[in-house]
Amino acid sequence: MQALSTRSLPGRSFRAVGAFSVHRTLPEEVPTAVVFNGSTLAVMMATPDDIADFAYGFALTEGVITRSDEVESFEVVSQAQGIEARFWLRDDRAEALSDRRRFMAGPVGCGLCGIDSLEQAMRPLPRVSDGALRLSRAEVAGATDALRPKQELHAQTRATHAAGFLVPGQGIDLVREDVGRHNALDKLIGALMRAGIDPASGVAVMTSRLSVELVQKCAMSGVPGLVGVSAPTARAVHLAEEAGVTLVAFARAGGFDIYSHAHRIADGVTNVA
Amino acid sequence: MQALSTRSLPGRSFRAVGAFSVHRTLPEEVPTAVVFNGSTLAVMMATPDDIADFAYGFALTEGVITRSDEVESFEVVSQAQGIEARFWLRDDRAEALSDRRRFMAGPVGCGLCGIDSLEQAMRPLPRVSDGALRLSRAEVAGATDALRPKQELHAQTRATHAAGFLVPGQGIDLVREDVGRHNALDKLIGALMRAGIDPASGVAVMTSRLSVELVQKCAMSGVPGLVGVSAPTARAVHLAEEAGVTLVAFARAGGFDIYSHAHRIADGVTNVA
Repeated sequence: MQALSTRSLPGRSFRAVGAFSVHRTLPEEVPTAVVFNGSTLAVMMATPDDIADFAYGFALTEGVITRSDEVESFEVVSQAQGIEARFWLRDDRAEALSDRRRFMAGPVGCGLCGIDSLEQAMRPLPRVSDGALRLSRAEVAGATDALRPKQELHAQTRATHAAGFLVPGQGIDLVREDVGRHNALDKLIGALMRAGIDPASGVAVMTSRLSVELVQKCAMSGVPGLVGVSAPTARAVHLAEEAGVTLVAFARAGGFDIYSHAHRIADGVTNVA
Repeated sequence: MQALSTRSLPGRSFRAVGAFSVHRTLPEEVPTAVVFNGSTLAVMMATPDDIADFAYGFALTEGVITRSDEVESFEVVSQAQGIEARFWLRDDRAEALSDRRRFMAGPVGCGLCGIDSLEQAMRPLPRVSDGALRLSRAEVAGATDALRPKQELHAQTRATHAAGFLVPGQGIDLVREDVGRHNALDKLIGALMRAGIDPASGVAVMTSRLSVELVQKCAMSGVPGLVGVSAPTARAVHLAEEAGVTLVAFARAGGFDIYSHAHRIADGVTNVA
């Protein structure tokens, strides 16, 4: 695993104390094709750990599958050019995907503009179920500090994002890492699905800013909360409000901000706009 | 401009000193479709500043155009759903794009795998011309510090990336910002093209990690160097070596590491692997 996901490369370092040769442990990126029934849906650059989790998470958050038993078979194949994650889907899902491909490949709207494409990019999200999940203020305030010691790839490279799953009363056990924050969250979501863990039983904790696509992934997979160390975008707040997702940002130094659905955080309810 | 690119939103902050209501200035993200001759090539979430720069930069780094005079007309249209950047291309470029679309929409390889898709994702890059560009060690060491006071959107939101153009002897004048680092670099490259500035006359300075796609964008646009505050990925180093791009990482606290083509940095040549 280590051999794949990092490489030690030589460089020359110029610092106040002088110039010297260095070998740094750098994270790897590999082109990764996600292939359904013989056709590639997307190629992404990914850190080559936990590729099966990544592929299942991507398939779920892109709406290609809704449950793992819709997958008839799956394999990860390493090629000279990169990695292929190959799914063979149950007939009904394969047909649904085929319909979607026809739509994607077809002419765009009136042929003169991108309105249809814009609408597809912001397709309506399912609303996460309200459920019984409640977190204490202390758990949320300590979430990114609890994540840090579990970021093994980051400890080696200082260059990867992490997504952890925070379960009330149990802390963070499940963590996935990648150079890209979207990939890290897809890996976490895929890992939940493959392990049969209820996505509504915890919230996702991220080392990154909180953008629209991260909220979309939570909503598509049924994860009811998203906690980030850094700022949200304005549209991510709006989308979280609509999709029923609790959005917590600036979670650091023992504090945090809530922007939506504060009722999931005990004593967090009062006076939130 | 300000009204578009940021929004002040209410939240509730829980800190060691107590709980209180806050209004934070957050960066905006807007779905942005880049449309050529009536067909959408891509929809991306972008901070809605400098959209014309973004669209020109994206068109150049994706290989759709090579010079600005290949564009017959261009307009930015705001829709309820997002922004459209509409290009009308000269006939020869439109035909080249049409050929490429046919390839993209066609059957994938043998129909059983994603090898062709992987090859397309890592298509060979042009090698940047060797040129006469030379930077002093001091300029490189101070690059990210010189960029910081020019990050206007970041000063308001603490949540956006920036790409600046560092010219030997002149420092950083041109800066572009976006929630996404890829977009920030596309905006910078588009701004260079639209202003008629030779891309080989300076290097790009980024507030982010240095991944494959950033090196690809430099190579496609002829920017001979990439300086980042944080780590490179292993594959980004490999690609920079191949494409003739000077890759500088960990450029902070008055120091930096060089990983490829060190000859562009004065006194940087010796002993680099």
